[in-house]
Amino acid sequence: MAYRRTPAVQQRLDAQRDAIASAAVALLTEHGYQGLSIAAVAERAGVATGTVYRHFTDKSDLMVRVFREQCGREVDAVNAVATTGTAAERIARVIETFASRALRKPALAYALLAEPVDAAVDAERLLFRRAFAAAFADAIRLGVTTGELPPQNPGLVAAALVGAVGEVLTGPLSVGEAAATTIPDLVTLGLRAAGCDPALDRHEGVPS
Amino acid sequence: MAYRRTPAVQQRLDAQRDAIASAAVALLTEHGYQGLSIAAVAERAGVATGTVYRHFTDKSDLMVRVFREQCGREVDAVNAVATTGTAAERIARVIETFASRALRKPALAYALLAEPVDAAVDAERLLFRRAFAAAFADAIRLGVTTGELPPQNPGLVAAALVGAVGEVLTGPLSVGEAAATTIPDLVTLGLRAAGCDPALDRHEGVPS
Repeated sequence: MAYRRTPAVQQRLDAQRDAIASAAVALLTEHGYQGLSIAAVAERAGVATGTVYRHFTDKSDLMVRVFREQCGREVDAVNAVATTGTAAERIARVIETFASRALRKPALAYALLAEPVDAAVDAERLLFRRAFAAAFADAIRLGVTTGELPPQNPGLVAAALVGAVGEVLTGPLSVGEAAATTIPDLVTLGLRAAGCDPALDRHEGVPS
Repeated sequence: MAYRRTPAVQQRLDAQRDAIASAAVALLTEHGYQGLSIAAVAERAGVATGTVYRHFTDKSDLMVRVFREQCGREVDAVNAVATTGTAAERIARVIETFASRALRKPALAYALLAEPVDAAVDAERLLFRRAFAAAFADAIRLGVTTGELPPQNPGLVAAALVGAVGEVLTGPLSVGEAAATTIPDLVTLGLRAAGCDPALDRHEGVPS
């Protein structure tokens, strides 16, 4: 017969597990994926290394849980701004939301998007890229339907935008430029890529 | 005193080294980076495994040489089409050239751009991404100078285009669509991203 934990024991174990996950997020935010070890997580969470292994089989297992939660938050943040307004407004807000969050926590963004990670963690990341692309694709599809945007392949353009934003912010070619200019430049680029010239929009038809 | 090889011996060693490198390129084109082993390279080149290790210390060493040569070819192909014409023509040709080559050899393109590889090999790849971005940045800078393109940050837009093209062709979101539609879609996207609406260009100012 299976051993049944009392509610108090279960609650204490859940709290310990959450503390370990929080410590892992803090270390990921500070040092990225490569800089994270189970020993450092244990120290940060104030538990023994063996305690971490009671909750997670290894670093990959812990990271899958952390990536799932963190990617879910990023997806929620992006989706929250992409459900109202014109297609251009939605595309701009998705880029602004993602970019401002990534620039605030660059090591975390690099880990979530681009850093070499275990295959199991990589699978979580793919779901994140897909959700991010889906937000763009929905906005583009809307714009094409209403005639706000020219005809295009929404899936292809959405994948391209995820690649473009990811490369500039966290990719091998990212140059760590100031957030102040990077975000509006990325928004302009994203709108233009979807066939919506921001200069035309803002200046009532006067070409830039 | 150093041992001096006779010209005939040196020639035979060079030929052997080239045969091993060619075998590695063939395997990389067929199976990508993960699918390549020193034993398979030796078999393909018709030499003993030990012979490969006489020329290259390990897989990473062999791959650095192969990546350097292959990336150099891709860069040459892209640069060859990016030195004449308008900015729009150059951007379009860089995308067409890179994309058509990548779609002809998808496993090789994935290895050169996106597949997880050793750090030493990754460094070669970064040079490739930089050269590819430089071709875009030069074209954009030209277009901004002549007034063909609106003001923009050429380095940022160039990095974004490399990220966009890479994601669509070889990234986690690539869907393996038919080359016939992917390439013109990518060209349209790239031109729009740089502020040059292809519909406006081709139809003499009539908005799409």
